[in-house]
Amino acid sequence: MSETYDFSLWSHYYRDYLLSNIIPFWLRHSIDNEYGGYFSCLDRYGKVFDTDKFIWLQARQVWMFAKLYQDNDLNVSNDERKQWLKTAQHGAEFLEKYGRHPTSRQWYFSLTQQGEPLIEPYNIFSSVFASMAFGQMAKIDETNAEKYKEIALNTFNDIQNRRSNPKGEWNKASSSSPRQLKSFALPMMMCNLAMELEHLIDKQLIQTLIHECSKEIIEQFRQSDSGLILEYINAKDGSRNDSFEGRLLNPGHGIEAMWFLLDISERQNNKELASICIDTLLIILNYSWDEKYGGIFYFLDIEQRPPQQLEWDQKLWWVHLETLIALVKAIDHRPEKTDELLGWLNKVQKYTIDHFVDPEGGELYGYLNRQGEVLLNLKGGKWKGCYHVPRAFYLCWKTLDTISKK
Amino acid sequence: MSETYDFSLWSHYYRDYLLSNIIPFWLRHSIDNEYGGYFSCLDRYGKVFDTDKFIWLQARQVWMFAKLYQDNDLNVSNDERKQWLKTAQHGAEFLEKYGRHPTSRQWYFSLTQQGEPLIEPYNIFSSVFASMAFGQMAKIDETNAEKYKEIALNTFNDIQNRRSNPKGEWNKASSSSPRQLKSFALPMMMCNLAMELEHLIDKQLIQTLIHECSKEIIEQFRQSDSGLILEYINAKDGSRNDSFEGRLLNPGHGIEAMWFLLDISERQNNKELASICIDTLLIILNYSWDEKYGGIFYFLDIEQRPPQQLEWDQKLWWVHLETLIALVKAIDHRPEKTDELLGWLNKVQKYTIDHFVDPEGGELYGYLNRQGEVLLNLKGGKWKGCYHVPRAFYLCWKTLDTISKK
Repeated sequence: MSETYDFSLWSHYYRDYLLSNIIPFWLRHSIDNEYGGYFSCLDRYGKVFDTDKFIWLQARQVWMFAKLYQDNDLNVSNDERKQWLKTAQHGAEFLEKYGRHPTSRQWYFSLTQQGEPLIEPYNIFSSVFASMAFGQMAKIDETNAEKYKEIALNTFNDIQNRRSNPKGEWNKASSSSPRQLKSFALPMMMCNLAMELEHLIDKQLIQTLIHECSKEIIEQFRQSDSGLILEYINAKDGSRNDSFEGRLLNPGHGIEAMWFLLDISERQNNKELASICIDTLLIILNYSWDEKYGGIFYFLDIEQRPPQQLEWDQKLWWVHLETLIALVKAIDHRPEKTDELLGWLNKVQKYTIDHFVDPEGGELYGYLNRQGEVLLNLKGGKWKGCYHVPRAFYLCWKTLDTISKK
Repeated sequence: MSETYDFSLWSHYYRDYLLSNIIPFWLRHSIDNEYGGYFSCLDRYGKVFDTDKFIWLQARQVWMFAKLYQDNDLNVSNDERKQWLKTAQHGAEFLEKYGRHPTSRQWYFSLTQQGEPLIEPYNIFSSVFASMAFGQMAKIDETNAEKYKEIALNTFNDIQNRRSNPKGEWNKASSSSPRQLKSFALPMMMCNLAMELEHLIDKQLIQTLIHECSKEIIEQFRQSDSGLILEYINAKDGSRNDSFEGRLLNPGHGIEAMWFLLDISERQNNKELASICIDTLLIILNYSWDEKYGGIFYFLDIEQRPPQQLEWDQKLWWVHLETLIALVKAIDHRPEKTDELLGWLNKVQKYTIDHFVDPEGGELYGYLNRQGEVLLNLKGGKWKGCYHVPRAFYLCWKTLDTISKK
């Protein structure tokens, strides 16, 4: 029996929950009108339970509202769109003012509510998300476009300089260690960042970067035997490393990267790449789905040995939402072979709505235990902010709408 | 109804499982005869699943076998005791040869199977456990006593020098951060280390160290209102800090520290301290016991807000074993008021035997989910080695035996 899925109906579902619940939730609860920036630690009903400001989440929320504002095809009121612009500007101002170390100009990891530095710029992804945020701001904020463009570019250049040793002075691996690994997260995020900054950077550089990073992902991190994607491989030659890190699978990361690469394949009109991405998506899903309780595991070991992450069997919001985006985009790319993809879309969507969506408290839960019960009833925290949920609902809405009109 | 507990019977239980199962498990599976040192990553049946060597676990296993060897009142054969000595020496030699950075002489965090450095000496507890191990070796290995004493003392002096900034160059907290916290783990472990090195260090220094650290624990980390022990407080004045770290409770740590301090109270004949320790133990247990599924939570937030540790609700072996030691020692200290303590001993012991002990595979499981089901079926890993389990079984055996003969 072939799978059925009402593209138009579900497009409306994602649209409605995004605009009537998710976005209002963040507008209502996350704006810090006293000190600027956003609160991200929100309990089930949106009450602030901690006031620290994490650069990842500040930057991602700026990006999200700027992205929504930029899309003038959403059929929402001008007042609503103006509020999105204002909200994005509110975060960008805070980031610009407090986010960077005064001498290195690198982005801190976290700040106090007032903007004082807490944790040093040890984490290169603070810079990646800041660069994305200001790149997007440069598109929508005419008054500050030049300034924001400069911040995005300076940050991008700093990331390029740090790529070979992203942890810098905070790297705990011994310099004389025989185990020098490279992380999947970096080429994955560079693919995303390159597309985000297309309007600001030399075309040749963008092409080279995308070519390098997508090649590294497909030819090195993706394993030719199993088709699975490893989180760490030997830096020197991309070979496998038999260690906790070297055996680690992070299914959500692999799946998220597949839709970044699907976007790239579309841009390059590269059907072969699209085909590899869709196959890999299905391989990861088949491997990582919990047959007993449903949902996608957070971490696994490629040799089925015990992973070091105690949270390995938990079900995390972003893993499931990135999977929905990847599936919807895959269906859009491969209309001729959608049965397996539609089957997964129905399954993952049902799991997500049944377990993560919380219409009573608003938004989505972030952390479930293996059984699918709520483990932490927060709606935002140190790692969950206004990003994966609205981005997924936005992209699913738009992509499903496109499919339904084909 | 008053609680009953057969001290003599349970003393035999701990003795028998230690000598017939736990110790043979480590002797059979953990010795690396090729490269020296010990394997700690052992699956359910003792098969090695990873060969990395973690200094914490190498040092703790040296300490454990040296400690058992030192006790000549165990009624075991000379051959068995000689094997314990040999096993301790086997690890000490590996540690001495490969464990320290060539210039700083600080202890690495981890090495390859062959002894090459993997992770830099960022973790002060590698030094604490190494110092304990060589301090104990100096007691039992006459040939190498002087050399081992020197290693223990040099390491102790290095720890003293690093105490004010234990993470050194790897500290990610900004130097201009308004949030400067101190960690409970350090004074707690210094109490333990001071008693372990009593035979090597000037008495006055030991007394000062014990006085300082126990005062810091009781007067600063222990909260005067709730009686609970915080994991981090403001470095400057010991006050509370409203942040993820500042709200964190680690019940196992608090409980473990209470039996370190009970030992100190006995040494000082300090009845007031003993009384505070026993009260605090009961307060932590009452607060941290999972009424729904049994077992002691791994992490909690003192304001009942969501903790950042996703593993917060899991049940860990060491938490329960340290609790058994603390309860047994408390009963030994306070024979006149044991009903509540005996109630807890019966409860925690039953939970431990029902859920952690694995007579089929040997030794004890380390990691259960909230429901008490096995989460990782390893017997040793990156953090679980030959330490908490044999130490607890040894101390419970000896202490229960003492009580039963009173």
